[in-house]
Amino acid sequence: MVFDDAYFMKEALRQAQLAFDAGEVPVGAVVVWDNKIIGRGHNQVEQLNDATAHAEIIAITAACNHIGAKYLMEGTLYVTVEPCLMCSGAIYWSKVGRIVFGTSDPKNGYQKTTGENWPFHPKAQLSNGVMAEECAQLMKEFFAARR
Amino acid sequence: MVFDDAYFMKEALRQAQLAFDAGEVPVGAVVVWDNKIIGRGHNQVEQLNDATAHAEIIAITAACNHIGAKYLMEGTLYVTVEPCLMCSGAIYWSKVGRIVFGTSDPKNGYQKTTGENWPFHPKAQLSNGVMAEECAQLMKEFFAARR
Repeated sequence: MVFDDAYFMKEALRQAQLAFDAGEVPVGAVVVWDNKIIGRGHNQVEQLNDATAHAEIIAITAACNHIGAKYLMEGTLYVTVEPCLMCSGAIYWSKVGRIVFGTSDPKNGYQKTTGENWPFHPKAQLSNGVMAEECAQLMKEFFAARR
Repeated sequence: MVFDDAYFMKEALRQAQLAFDAGEVPVGAVVVWDNKIIGRGHNQVEQLNDATAHAEIIAITAACNHIGAKYLMEGTLYVTVEPCLMCSGAIYWSKVGRIVFGTSDPKNGYQKTTGENWPFHPKAQLSNGVMAEECAQLMKEFFAARR
C-alpha cells in the first residue's frame, strides 16, 4: 500500500460518494496526519439543514476533536473540489499545513473571490488536480441528474 | 424603544463583552428578523477549542435552528467587528440579507483578501461603522491587556 496523494484523495472520493448517495452536492474531505486519517467529512447541508455544513468544515472539526487541539499545522486536507471562500477561511484559521484538492470550481471556489490573494496560512502548501477527472465526474453526474 | 441599528449593535456588543469576560477575542453578533433577535453568538474559539467557533457562525447557526430553515434572506446580521473571510463565506451561504458591522479589521477582515470583490450574496446589503468606537475600544482593551 502506497500512502500517496491519490490514495487519500480516493478516501475523500468515498466521502463524496456518501454525499452523492444522500442527494447532497458530492464533495468529500479527509484530514491526514502522519499517514493516518484523523477526520472525515462529506457535504451535509441538506441533511443538517445548515448551509455551512461543508465537507471541509466537518472533516476539520473531526480532526481537531481527534487530536484535542485547534490547529492542524502538520495535517493535510484532501478535498475533492476546490474549497469555497468560507472553507478557505476555516482552513486558514485551523492552520492546515497542506491542502490538496481534486477539481477546480469556477462557480463557488475561493479563487473566484480572492483572485490572486492567498487565503490560507502563509506557510501552507497547496496542490490541486489530484484525481481531478473522478472528482469532477461525480459533480457532473449529480448536476446532470438534477436538471 | 427604537429598534434601530444602534439598538441591535448594542446587543451584539453585549455578546462581545461575554467573549471579553471569558478571555476570548471580544467579537459578538446577533441575527435580527422582523425586529426580533433570533440568534446570538460570541467568539468561543478557546472555550470550544475550535478555531472556527466565531461569533457570526454561532449566531447564524442559532438563527437557522430557530426558524428551521437554512437561509436568512430576511435577516440582518449585526457583528461588532468586520467579518473574517470564513465568516463572509458563511454569510454568503446562509444568504443573510443585510450585514451591519461595527469596526473594520484590517488584519483579519475579509476585505484584506477579497479586495474589491463582493463576498456576500449578490442581493445583500452592507452597512458599517455603527457604534464603531465602542466596538473598537473593546478590541483595543483586550489586546492591550494581552501585551
